[in-house]
Amino acid sequence: MEKRKIEVSLSPALFSSYYHNPECNVVVVDVFRATSAMCTAFHHGVKEIIPVATVEEAISYKKEGYLVGAERNGEVVEGFDFGNSPFSYMGDEIKGKTIVLTTTNGTKAIAIAKGVNEILIGSFLNLSALAEYLIEDNKDVLIQCAGWKNRFNMEDTLFAGALVQKLLESSDFGNLADSAVAASHLYEVAKDDLYKFLEKSSHRNRLKRLNLDDDIRFCLEVSKFSVVPIFKEGVLVEKNEFVSAS
Amino acid sequence: MEKRKIEVSLSPALFSSYYHNPECNVVVVDVFRATSAMCTAFHHGVKEIIPVATVEEAISYKKEGYLVGAERNGEVVEGFDFGNSPFSYMGDEIKGKTIVLTTTNGTKAIAIAKGVNEILIGSFLNLSALAEYLIEDNKDVLIQCAGWKNRFNMEDTLFAGALVQKLLESSDFGNLADSAVAASHLYEVAKDDLYKFLEKSSHRNRLKRLNLDDDIRFCLEVSKFSVVPIFKEGVLVEKNEFVSAS
Repeated sequence: MEKRKIEVSLSPALFSSYYHNPECNVVVVDVFRATSAMCTAFHHGVKEIIPVATVEEAISYKKEGYLVGAERNGEVVEGFDFGNSPFSYMGDEIKGKTIVLTTTNGTKAIAIAKGVNEILIGSFLNLSALAEYLIEDNKDVLIQCAGWKNRFNMEDTLFAGALVQKLLESSDFGNLADSAVAASHLYEVAKDDLYKFLEKSSHRNRLKRLNLDDDIRFCLEVSKFSVVPIFKEGVLVEKNEFVSAS
Repeated sequence: MEKRKIEVSLSPALFSSYYHNPECNVVVVDVFRATSAMCTAFHHGVKEIIPVATVEEAISYKKEGYLVGAERNGEVVEGFDFGNSPFSYMGDEIKGKTIVLTTTNGTKAIAIAKGVNEILIGSFLNLSALAEYLIEDNKDVLIQCAGWKNRFNMEDTLFAGALVQKLLESSDFGNLADSAVAASHLYEVAKDDLYKFLEKSSHRNRLKRLNLDDDIRFCLEVSKFSVVPIFKEGVLVEKNEFVSAS
């Protein structure tokens, strides 16, 4: 039997070059910090998240009374409730609520994957739960890195490598694109100390300048949460909630 | 003094996301096999190479009586003199001649970089000579991988990593994009046996199926030639020839 395929699209600009199988599962990852914040929010009881690509869309939701997060270039956009720090998504005020979110790279990566059968949200925080879901579901996997303004970034690629290694624990997977092999090798080099390995990475330094070192360390914690956010009909929900609602 | 920058664009689709400095040197690489063939041709005395993006352009040059190479999906296009095997570019019949060449990925990568101040041709075959030229020239470096149909490929990324490491031998360089750091790490893992490391890579296997193992081994020989092909006004010439002609 042919092994299931794992591909990694290292930038949103490459999505269309990789995407060819409407049946595959697409995992969107933006480690620093959009998808880490999303996983944190679902773990802390948020009901759903509406990812929007532009600040303009976010403003119109805000006018309708929604809780809205907006981040650009690592900072909270003025006038919004929060940005994409995971620590903003732990309080009681989000429990059971719908949140709207726009970020520099992460929500755009979700937007380009629209039209795909199933989009899942990945981060180091939910690595094991996500891998388990993907292994059980009998599909190829395409990991879409959010990158930084269409450029390659290290942290999303390391997550992709970690996920590749997890998926290979199932013998169903084995057909790897070059990008998946590369991501796996990079993770192998980095995994003993992700924080230190990322010392020279551009976005870690961008966040450090904004005094967000706690965020960085938090986003690199592995398999802390068991949520699997899934994007359906324009909205992110937790997988189990989606299953029970359908 | 700020260190000179090295960036790696891992796919032609990412070129515009990286390119922002008209003064930088752009290195185009397509290890299997376009840029390896070009370096081989210059070492064996070809006068100039006109890279064209489409088979149609190649046909019109052929009608004018030029020697024309055309490759698509690893094979010589019917009716042309040669494809992109380096072994086709070693004979006396090319000495002093102008050659026209179109390939699946390599010539397209050159085409997208058009408009840039200086485009240089890189391959393992001319690694040291190229690095020496780039170090002496006081500019930032952007390495453009040809990839495979806009996807990431391993062999071009390994070359990029090898070049990053060579450039870092000069203390002028030190400002690395994440993509350059990643390429360097991959090369570090692979360098003791590039051939073996590439065993699982998609394009190596594509070429092996076409019985091109000799080509693969040849393209992985490091610093065999001292040529530095440079693209000026639509034509590739050898750097020294260009200098003496200007």
